[in-house]
Amino acid sequence: MEAAIAESGGSVADLGEWGIIAALAARMPSGPLTAIGIGDDAAVVAVPSGSVVASVDLLLEGQHFLLSWSSGYDVGVKAAARSLADIAAMGAVPTALLVALAAPGTLPARWALDLADGLAFEAGRAGAGVVGGDTARADKVLLSVTALGDLAGRAPVRRAGAAPGDVVAVSGPLGHSAAGYALLAAGARPVTAADAEAASEAAPRELAGLMAAHLRPAPAYQAGPEAAALGATAMIDVSDGLLADLGHVAAASGVWIDIDSSRLALGDPLAAAAAAVSRLSRTHAAGSPRSLPLQWALTGGEDHSLAATFAPSVSLPPRWRVIGTTRSGSGVTVDGEPYRGSPGWEHFR
Amino acid sequence: MEAAIAESGGSVADLGEWGIIAALAARMPSGPLTAIGIGDDAAVVAVPSGSVVASVDLLLEGQHFLLSWSSGYDVGVKAAARSLADIAAMGAVPTALLVALAAPGTLPARWALDLADGLAFEAGRAGAGVVGGDTARADKVLLSVTALGDLAGRAPVRRAGAAPGDVVAVSGPLGHSAAGYALLAAGARPVTAADAEAASEAAPRELAGLMAAHLRPAPAYQAGPEAAALGATAMIDVSDGLLADLGHVAAASGVWIDIDSSRLALGDPLAAAAAAVSRLSRTHAAGSPRSLPLQWALTGGEDHSLAATFAPSVSLPPRWRVIGTTRSGSGVTVDGEPYRGSPGWEHFR
Repeated sequence: MEAAIAESGGSVADLGEWGIIAALAARMPSGPLTAIGIGDDAAVVAVPSGSVVASVDLLLEGQHFLLSWSSGYDVGVKAAARSLADIAAMGAVPTALLVALAAPGTLPARWALDLADGLAFEAGRAGAGVVGGDTARADKVLLSVTALGDLAGRAPVRRAGAAPGDVVAVSGPLGHSAAGYALLAAGARPVTAADAEAASEAAPRELAGLMAAHLRPAPAYQAGPEAAALGATAMIDVSDGLLADLGHVAAASGVWIDIDSSRLALGDPLAAAAAAVSRLSRTHAAGSPRSLPLQWALTGGEDHSLAATFAPSVSLPPRWRVIGTTRSGSGVTVDGEPYRGSPGWEHFR
Repeated sequence: MEAAIAESGGSVADLGEWGIIAALAARMPSGPLTAIGIGDDAAVVAVPSGSVVASVDLLLEGQHFLLSWSSGYDVGVKAAARSLADIAAMGAVPTALLVALAAPGTLPARWALDLADGLAFEAGRAGAGVVGGDTARADKVLLSVTALGDLAGRAPVRRAGAAPGDVVAVSGPLGHSAAGYALLAAGARPVTAADAEAASEAAPRELAGLMAAHLRPAPAYQAGPEAAALGATAMIDVSDGLLADLGHVAAASGVWIDIDSSRLALGDPLAAAAAAVSRLSRTHAAGSPRSLPLQWALTGGEDHSLAATFAPSVSLPPRWRVIGTTRSGSGVTVDGEPYRGSPGWEHFR
């Protein structure tokens, strides 16, 4: 029935609360450790290690996504990824999501079903089930996603724990989400996968990849438990920007973190994006093309890559690249100097 | 600092995101099973039984509460109670809450601190810690509260499992929240505890108690694990109304539930409230005073009492009162007949 309503252009209100819950629930993976999923007062999920890891993140229309930029599918992926990355950042294996959705009754049913597909895809990619949720009516779309995980016998990797002399390493891209955001804000629009394949030059594919990184972050969740197994001394997911998030690690650990900008591997896509953003932006308010890649990598949020500290003796697998060191002291510097610019996002301003 | 801002009439925006998080976090109980609480990427909570119970509920301004009726403290208590009751309804012991709060920047800081106190009070009453959260800016106040619990070695009590011949029993009040809502909607206002003590007749105290039941539900969380230990065959928390929630049990278990209206113990407070509502309401749209108590008990939501089914041989402790029986068949009846009236709440309409 929900398919018929969606195809006919019906709304969430046409589905009704039970209809939308049933339609969303039918699309969700149950997860290998789920004993009781959607449909009872609460879910029951096995926690073999006896310690559950839990985190909640809000995702709001107009603040974390725009309906004009993001499809329902995009929003589902992003909402799941934000919360799942927090579980990985503790060194845990994601096991389950609980999803609370508030939305206008006029929201197209098709959009809600796409949202469910995006949530299901990303949960599945992390190996987690979607085990519960709630729905309500609101003026704007809002998601609150709680992620649960299991430590699988390892100690949690906290923000505190880095010691002077550790190396700082990152798994995953830096600045890609910010570059994608800047491209979208400058008027660029993502091309479909088929468009990108058909394009003859590399640039559009690269730019599309950055916009996709903003709209649908794809954290390497396995890097979290991997880092824990390697003895990571501290870890965080890069959600507010590298400087801001390493600032949390430095403060919690009582160390000074210095980033070596030459090791950030900014790469060709960020340079291409900087050129495109400068070309597209009439006001030049976006910044100089030369400085943008570094700015994106240091202050851009929402990559949901993992940043961790390790004893210098640890041999790191290829997906971890060393970008800095920790020393006695406090704060975060770049090439030994404070970085001038906004250190990250803050709400309520 | 936050106290100074609150006392000077400052807003949430004056506190800033980190300020509001720090102020809220400082008020929260950590919980006896919490290994890592607020302040890292995710919380870590012990789950001795190896199975975590989890549920999420939304609470929205204008839909689940009104700022003109509820204090911040009231909203905190209610948001916590809604989610914690779901854990108890599985037969589990609540262990932790994660709280996502979206609010306007203009929200008084005092209100947010009161909210935190209400959350902390109710979490503490349930024995749970508040271990994590998120904040964001929104046009209206919205809370998404995830509750976690531990089964303590017992099997979860589901909605399915009731068998023909079981008794249906309830722990906690029925219709009190609905009566309180009706009183508030009719223009009654809660008196303070001091006012109530000073009142010479019983009625104002009774009515104040009903309004308090609506604004600050106080579920008996211990009744959930107690019912599980007694071998309850099915259980649910009464959030949408007794008929609607027992309807879920009847459907999931494949039984017919018949309620004996003479055993609902409607009591003097509901009769007094019905008389007061009739007196206060000019339009008589509220219904006849004689039928209101039964209507509130059967269809009023948000009492968060627990309803469970037990084999007839089980000797029930005093807080469980038998209100009906299960038989072969389907659906829910009252004294053998379908009840005419709205079966409960539905959003998205």
